[in-house]
Amino acid sequence: MKLLKDKILNEGKVIDGKILKVDSFLNHQMDVRLFNEIGKEFRERFSNDVVTKIVTIEASGIGIACMAAEHFGNVPVVFAKKTLGANIVDETYSSDVHSFTKNQCYKVKIAKRFIDNSDKVLIIDDFLANGCAALGLIDIVRQAGAEVVGVGIVIEKGFQPGRKVVEEAGVRVESLAIIEKFDNDRVIFKE
Amino acid sequence: MKLLKDKILNEGKVIDGKILKVDSFLNHQMDVRLFNEIGKEFRERFSNDVVTKIVTIEASGIGIACMAAEHFGNVPVVFAKKTLGANIVDETYSSDVHSFTKNQCYKVKIAKRFIDNSDKVLIIDDFLANGCAALGLIDIVRQAGAEVVGVGIVIEKGFQPGRKVVEEAGVRVESLAIIEKFDNDRVIFKE
Repeated sequence: MKLLKDKILNEGKVIDGKILKVDSFLNHQMDVRLFNEIGKEFRERFSNDVVTKIVTIEASGIGIACMAAEHFGNVPVVFAKKTLGANIVDETYSSDVHSFTKNQCYKVKIAKRFIDNSDKVLIIDDFLANGCAALGLIDIVRQAGAEVVGVGIVIEKGFQPGRKVVEEAGVRVESLAIIEKFDNDRVIFKE
Repeated sequence: MKLLKDKILNEGKVIDGKILKVDSFLNHQMDVRLFNEIGKEFRERFSNDVVTKIVTIEASGIGIACMAAEHFGNVPVVFAKKTLGANIVDETYSSDVHSFTKNQCYKVKIAKRFIDNSDKVLIIDDFLANGCAALGLIDIVRQAGAEVVGVGIVIEKGFQPGRKVVEEAGVRVESLAIIEKFDNDRVIFKE
């Protein structure tokens, strides 16, 4: 997706040769015009699939998922929570996720009421690196007996094992920008 | 806003006579068609105002803010973070917020790069109760020397002091549904 790659090249910052900072348009400040194009692109990539629900994870997946949902006939979006507030007393599906960025484990949870075995779920997230968050969401969707249509990712770190672990779980991955490597402070995309 | 009030009456659940649970459409599962109407309504309420940026707070404000931004000419959305990931090394504006729901204090932060003194900021959030989150966001916007155009709220608990404290800070509040009280398990709207 050219628009996205240009944005990454123009505004992304590589820190210590390993972290890509895109907080000016993706995960702190959000460029909603870009999000709209991202949503459109996800719809094209999954144009042959029925999608009844989009699942994402708080916080940075939410904006992208909502804007994408508009292109999937306004299907409901459910975001997995990392912690549950005092006012959630529901039965939940949960899965353990390890965050390499923060170097800690956390549980992700979704109330059982919001996914059932008739759902065909597209999982959307901003980044794919080690695949831990994606695997956690796949696990939750499958606990509900629902079908995972695929995983839609904005930026994939192609040099990390995320794609491999998700595909080994039998799930298709569509990433709008795949980074092959960081050459010092420069982003090199795959193909 | 009739569509929203109907949704609250049909799907909201009052717990222990004091907590309104609207997680089937607002803050866990998200009804993006409703979010779109909410965005349209905010635009109407602030139709005489110039808005250059929308500021919200993670996580449940994000979807609403992004969909609203489409109606404000695709202005950027910035969400305040409750904790900062390892990859944020920026200078930030921060403010302390007390959460009554979770009975704890937390800091909200926004990187300084994303608000400046030319900005006219609309603050959007899902709930207004005690006004603590809204006051924290107003504080941050003003630290940046920017103007707060107003606070747009989806559901206001009219029996709590949120509106009063925000208005005393000199900021206009627009809430799309104002709850006067809970009559046992029933929601009674103001007017």
